[in-house]
Amino acid sequence: MNQKPSLRPLSATKGAATPDTEGTLSLLHESVSLPAAVVYRSRLANNLHWMQDFADSQRVKLAPHGKTTMTPHFFQLQREAGAWAQTLASAPQAVAAANAGIERILMANQLVGKANMALISGLLAKGDVEFHCLVDSADNIDELGNYFHTRGQVLNVLIEIGVTGGRCGCRDESQAHELAERIRQQPGLRLSGIETYEGVIGGADAAKKIRTHLARVRDLTLDLYSKGYFGEHKAILTGAGSAWYDLVAEVFGDTDADKIIPVIRPGCYLIHDKGIYMQAQQQVRERLGDSCSIGGDLQSALEVWAYVQSLPEPGLAILTLGKRDCAFDAGLPQPALHFRPGQEAPTPAPDTWQVFHIMDQHSAMKIPEGADLKVGDIIALSTSHPCLTFDKWRELHVIDDDYTIVAQAETCF
Amino acid sequence: MNQKPSLRPLSATKGAATPDTEGTLSLLHESVSLPAAVVYRSRLANNLHWMQDFADSQRVKLAPHGKTTMTPHFFQLQREAGAWAQTLASAPQAVAAANAGIERILMANQLVGKANMALISGLLAKGDVEFHCLVDSADNIDELGNYFHTRGQVLNVLIEIGVTGGRCGCRDESQAHELAERIRQQPGLRLSGIETYEGVIGGADAAKKIRTHLARVRDLTLDLYSKGYFGEHKAILTGAGSAWYDLVAEVFGDTDADKIIPVIRPGCYLIHDKGIYMQAQQQVRERLGDSCSIGGDLQSALEVWAYVQSLPEPGLAILTLGKRDCAFDAGLPQPALHFRPGQEAPTPAPDTWQVFHIMDQHSAMKIPEGADLKVGDIIALSTSHPCLTFDKWRELHVIDDDYTIVAQAETCF
Repeated sequence: MNQKPSLRPLSATKGAATPDTEGTLSLLHESVSLPAAVVYRSRLANNLHWMQDFADSQRVKLAPHGKTTMTPHFFQLQREAGAWAQTLASAPQAVAAANAGIERILMANQLVGKANMALISGLLAKGDVEFHCLVDSADNIDELGNYFHTRGQVLNVLIEIGVTGGRCGCRDESQAHELAERIRQQPGLRLSGIETYEGVIGGADAAKKIRTHLARVRDLTLDLYSKGYFGEHKAILTGAGSAWYDLVAEVFGDTDADKIIPVIRPGCYLIHDKGIYMQAQQQVRERLGDSCSIGGDLQSALEVWAYVQSLPEPGLAILTLGKRDCAFDAGLPQPALHFRPGQEAPTPAPDTWQVFHIMDQHSAMKIPEGADLKVGDIIALSTSHPCLTFDKWRELHVIDDDYTIVAQAETCF
Repeated sequence: MNQKPSLRPLSATKGAATPDTEGTLSLLHESVSLPAAVVYRSRLANNLHWMQDFADSQRVKLAPHGKTTMTPHFFQLQREAGAWAQTLASAPQAVAAANAGIERILMANQLVGKANMALISGLLAKGDVEFHCLVDSADNIDELGNYFHTRGQVLNVLIEIGVTGGRCGCRDESQAHELAERIRQQPGLRLSGIETYEGVIGGADAAKKIRTHLARVRDLTLDLYSKGYFGEHKAILTGAGSAWYDLVAEVFGDTDADKIIPVIRPGCYLIHDKGIYMQAQQQVRERLGDSCSIGGDLQSALEVWAYVQSLPEPGLAILTLGKRDCAFDAGLPQPALHFRPGQEAPTPAPDTWQVFHIMDQHSAMKIPEGADLKVGDIIALSTSHPCLTFDKWRELHVIDDDYTIVAQAETCF
């Protein structure tokens, strides 16, 4: 975060910035072509350390899911803060993380297809990355085993355990045992652990069902360990999205430390939001109660800044941001700040200003008649579901609390 | 389209391709890291010429909306096929089009904010681009007038006419007259035309309401023309998204050709889809009836190809594509083709295979129990709403009908 901002020339990238006459970049000086995505450095740092402290206090390893941001600079921050590994969702994402210097990668997905296997084989050939991916079928095990053995390589695989009606993964213990046995027959593969994703379990009693599921996965892992399927290594035992990581830490963290490496994989925590993940975190805090000694809490670190481009009729403002610029699948963006260029600082946007409709390149915001709003004013909007805002941007502006741009972070979607 | 494919090295860009031993790139040889977005060259060419022929036959100019693809190579194809201008939605998009060699740009939006004005001022300074944007408020007119006059430049502006409850634009003729008068007072501005976007009009009787609205906009334009607001120039009179371009051509196209340049701005036609734009086009064809002499019709040119990564329980397949890879706001992706690597060619996917759920990085596809599907099989999926699939990709593969990759087209979102 201490890197000097690169003062780039005018470009065709949306959100491009031009330094002002003093050579500084500030949102308040309109140095940036809006709409633009901005991340608050202080909030990012807060979230970075909050989750690492949580993992440390629970004696679980943190392998943050990188798919949310796909921002190499943020991967580096997570590693420096103490992350044990970086989780990714696909082979190209894994390559991007390795290019950013990440040395342990957990691809929380099956590795399928010749070109994707080639990407990972290329990673392994470099020799400086420890890579793991998931398997849940005999066909995939055979494909991977042949592919990597032919190349004189050994691929680490975790067996994924799923739930009926859920996503990927074995549905019962006997399948898992069969796959473990099949992996043992493949010299191109090594069983390195067991994985699950509890986020697909929902409905009433979700917490109870998730605890039961996690305990089952833990017991299976210990059973496979006792049968020697992990050889001389500890077994990685990993779960957790950003909504139930506390339960995963609770159930996996108290497992025999001489046999198991417990790993949680939240991703959205780094950016957080004012929507579904804020709600999920409130529930985490309620479940943790007084048992959590970590001060503070996660903070929404991302905003999209946009202009008021039209006030075409009383009560209606049209903003220069749309589905092209932010997530809209888990709630519409919410006006957080109002700034009129020339003023000293933004003020909180009134609660009565509400985005009620979003189109490809525009949003419609309801305002009270007579609201003090002008064409050319700036609205900073919070969002819900950071993943789907991040993948709309090739570059984000990292800002200080005074809205000065301190770095531009490139994404690699 | 005749450019040699660039055979790129392995990269961290999703959809990256590696040539096979013969140096060719083929989807059927698994040269590409899936998921990947592909565009059929023959269908693209079909759509390119269909719409240009339509515009020519209706004696309207075509200014295709570039926001859909933001693919400079496609902008160039549209220009070569006879497009009069390229429409864009923002200042960075306009700069991207100019960088691609487009010489007449219609920014179908208000130009707001210092950094955005700077981008356009930079374009004008180069001297080889004719640029137009929209205005609908006195505040914006004054801002633009001051900004460009101070720099010794003249900005072409069109007054936007909207509808009550719609998006941007003046709501009545008297407002439009006031703005025209205000523009005349600004030496940094020139009134170059009148713009509307009929796509916000819907509900029962939409076609009738749209015809009435368009006639009103045409009459206003002729009125302003007769009053000398366009000086010695013809007035640009422009409307049309991808759903009602036939009505815009009908109403604007029969206007006095010595006073008016009628322009339609469809964008999605070039890519088309198997969803909302297919439905809209069916309605266009019904309205046109026998009056349309153009052979053939638009074809869905875009697919996202993905692997089956898991078959975790009977009736369920998990695919390696998600909200990160394709539009999901106007219908879920639809399985079009099924291909098992090693086979000669894909076969149509059965209608019984249906994507019923999409997550960030996965989709869930319902299949009949016992369906002939394996982990590692490829599914090609059609989508609905091409704009929101395009902006998920930095590169698209242009393919021949035999699935050979003939070009890689970069996007510039």
